[in-house]
Amino acid sequence: MLGMSFLFTFTLGIAVMKFKNPPVNSLSLELLTELVISLEKLENDKTFRGVILTSDSPGVFSAGLDLREMCGRNPAHYAEYWKAVQELWLRLYLSNMVLIAAINGASPAGGCLISLSCDYRVLADNPRYAIGLNETLLGIVAPFWFKDTLVNTIGHRAAERALQLGLLFPPAEALQVGIVDKVVPEDQVQSTALSVMGKWLAIPDHARQLTKNMMRKPTVDRLVKQRDADIKNFVSFVSRDAIQKSLQIYLEKLKQRKG
Amino acid sequence: MLGMSFLFTFTLGIAVMKFKNPPVNSLSLELLTELVISLEKLENDKTFRGVILTSDSPGVFSAGLDLREMCGRNPAHYAEYWKAVQELWLRLYLSNMVLIAAINGASPAGGCLISLSCDYRVLADNPRYAIGLNETLLGIVAPFWFKDTLVNTIGHRAAERALQLGLLFPPAEALQVGIVDKVVPEDQVQSTALSVMGKWLAIPDHARQLTKNMMRKPTVDRLVKQRDADIKNFVSFVSRDAIQKSLQIYLEKLKQRKG
Amino acid sequence: MLGMSFLFTFTLGIAVMKFKNPPVNSLSLELLTELVISLEKLENDKTFRGVILTSDSPGVFSAGLDLREMCGRNPAHYAEYWKAVQELWLRLYLSNMVLIAAINGASPAGGCLISLSCDYRVLADNPRYAIGLNETLLGIVAPFWFKDTLVNTIGHRAAERALQLGLLFPPAEALQVGIVDKVVPEDQVQSTALSVMGKWLAIPDHARQLTKNMMRKPTVDRLVKQRDADIKNFVSFVSRDAIQKSLQIYLEKLKQRKG
Repeated sequence: MLGMSFLFTFTLGIAVMKFKNPPVNSLSLELLTELVISLEKLENDKTFRGVILTSDSPGVFSAGLDLREMCGRNPAHYAEYWKAVQELWLRLYLSNMVLIAAINGASPAGGCLISLSCDYRVLADNPRYAIGLNETLLGIVAPFWFKDTLVNTIGHRAAERALQLGLLFPPAEALQVGIVDKVVPEDQVQSTALSVMGKWLAIPDHARQLTKNMMRKPTVDRLVKQRDADIKNFVSFVSRDAIQKSLQIYLEKLKQRKG
Repeated sequence: MLGMSFLFTFTLGIAVMKFKNPPVNSLSLELLTELVISLEKLENDKTFRGVILTSDSPGVFSAGLDLREMCGRNPAHYAEYWKAVQELWLRLYLSNMVLIAAINGASPAGGCLISLSCDYRVLADNPRYAIGLNETLLGIVAPFWFKDTLVNTIGHRAAERALQLGLLFPPAEALQVGIVDKVVPEDQVQSTALSVMGKWLAIPDHARQLTKNMMRKPTVDRLVKQRDADIKNFVSFVSRDAIQKSLQIYLEKLKQRKG
Repeated sequence: MLGMSFLFTFTLGIAVMKFKNPPVNSLSLELLTELVISLEKLENDKTFRGVILTSDSPGVFSAGLDLREMCGRNPAHYAEYWKAVQELWLRLYLSNMVLIAAINGASPAGGCLISLSCDYRVLADNPRYAIGLNETLLGIVAPFWFKDTLVNTIGHRAAERALQLGLLFPPAEALQVGIVDKVVPEDQVQSTALSVMGKWLAIPDHARQLTKNMMRKPTVDRLVKQRDADIKNFVSFVSRDAIQKSLQIYLEKLKQRKG
């Protein structure tokens, strides 16, 4: 299956993983599963020390969760899907490797979560490439661990405002609020990510990994402790008639737009 | 009683509550009680989704706690008063409505707490309109939940410095440290608050409310868990001879100034 | 012993303590012990309300832990040394006095910790005077309470990046990230520290002390609760052959440089 959803390129111990799930790199169950397996393989392969996450189709980094996985399926499927979303975050946020997001497109909701879970974020300077946890705009609520990840990155007050308003930050604002670390011209996103990676890889791995773990483990532990409750919560929420109806209407609209 | 301490105006589901307790909008027990009742009524009335808090007498937003409630009374009165202060904060900080502070005057101590408990703060650009938790200047200590609310808003380090020094921030500094969100010319405070309210009310209520609750409930729970101890602590502190003497001297001075 | 490692000057209830342990003010066990004793004496002497910490040899504020205390000794010595490092931090971070760091030289690792434990930091504007917790550069990990102190000062995200990369901030960057509060020309460091001290001492002591305690005690309690485990952890880490070898090589290099 590997290679369907990703493109890999390797150089000097660095893997470049390119999301490839047209048209908008939605986080389908298949993509999530592959992504987790790929990360695990890289994690266990000592020749790799860093990963750059980017999109194969500039314009969209990732549109986030795949609504088709959350609509018209059975509870077991919803549970499996949510567990995969959790698993991706757990893998990314505590990865022993250096993870850098080369954000070459819009990065809402789940796409933003992936970026936030990296060690560093480079965003292309294109006003259409906004980034943020915009769940409230769709009438839904970001899970507490999305929230924790955002608070860790931009602080309590900025997170409170951004989450309530579902803010999507264009590049200049994203940099100012600290949801990304650097904004560069679109054709320099990859080279900047590589050059930043060089600096992070100059640090002795073991010390860097232990330090990262010290910073992030308490946040991860909060989800680990209540992982099943969080899955139940998602399944019960998404199974509600009102939510299913909203999702169906939304997906219909998306189909018409394409058509 | 309603209407003694407040003026209300209503427009499009938005209530404008104007503090009216001359000369400085002190938070008397009566005002606190009315404010809590009014908030509860609005909260239960589904036609209201937002509240703008402001002062009927520009120049002072609110001078904070009413020292007359803390001086020359019995312990039962002190306990009742403190419980009312707690109740106001609990109501404001977790309100399901969108709360915006239109700060058209000085906003020290308890006046600052009210502002901090809103979702957004607009401050009039007048150098005399300073805002902050200046308790140490009076030789007293801000309660831990005042502190928590400030830390949530401006972060640990800025709060540590501001609380120790009892800093009152004039508009430009207030904006920079993040204790307010926007500074505008004095005659645009209300219109700006209304326009910001529009953006917050554009978000689906249910998702926004759950998100707000997720952000703020842990802070509220800290007080709820030790509410009685916090009251006892206040009563015992304020009953001390030294504190009563200080308050009497301070109140005498205030009377002379007026006279 | 007093006076070997420090120079004291006194003025108006303010003690100026100057580190004097050439060539780089390493935190030897002797210096730590004297520093703790001196702080305790000042703390108990009500004529002193503030302390300015600075270096007697401009160019280096303090190079941090003394590697000679961690190399070629027995476990009991390592345990004694680490307990002294903990003790210094506990004394500094919760001191009832106002502590101001007049940073007139480089301030890496333990030197940075001392600065962070003060109430205010003034840094000389010299590009060679960098400040930060650069432990990872040496292949080691900052203890969790170093990390907590940094997070309290510059926030979670900035601390995460700084700690992983072992960043040493030159003055302009140090000010921007908030690891120091003020940058002034080198010849104005002491006078600025004194003038800032004046503002802090203008606050009623009791209220300021209780406020400081409220802000910092939870962080201190985390170490107090697991102090022995933290010592064991250090002793076991530093006793490892690989670490001893690294330290020996490093110390040899330092000797050759001097020679």
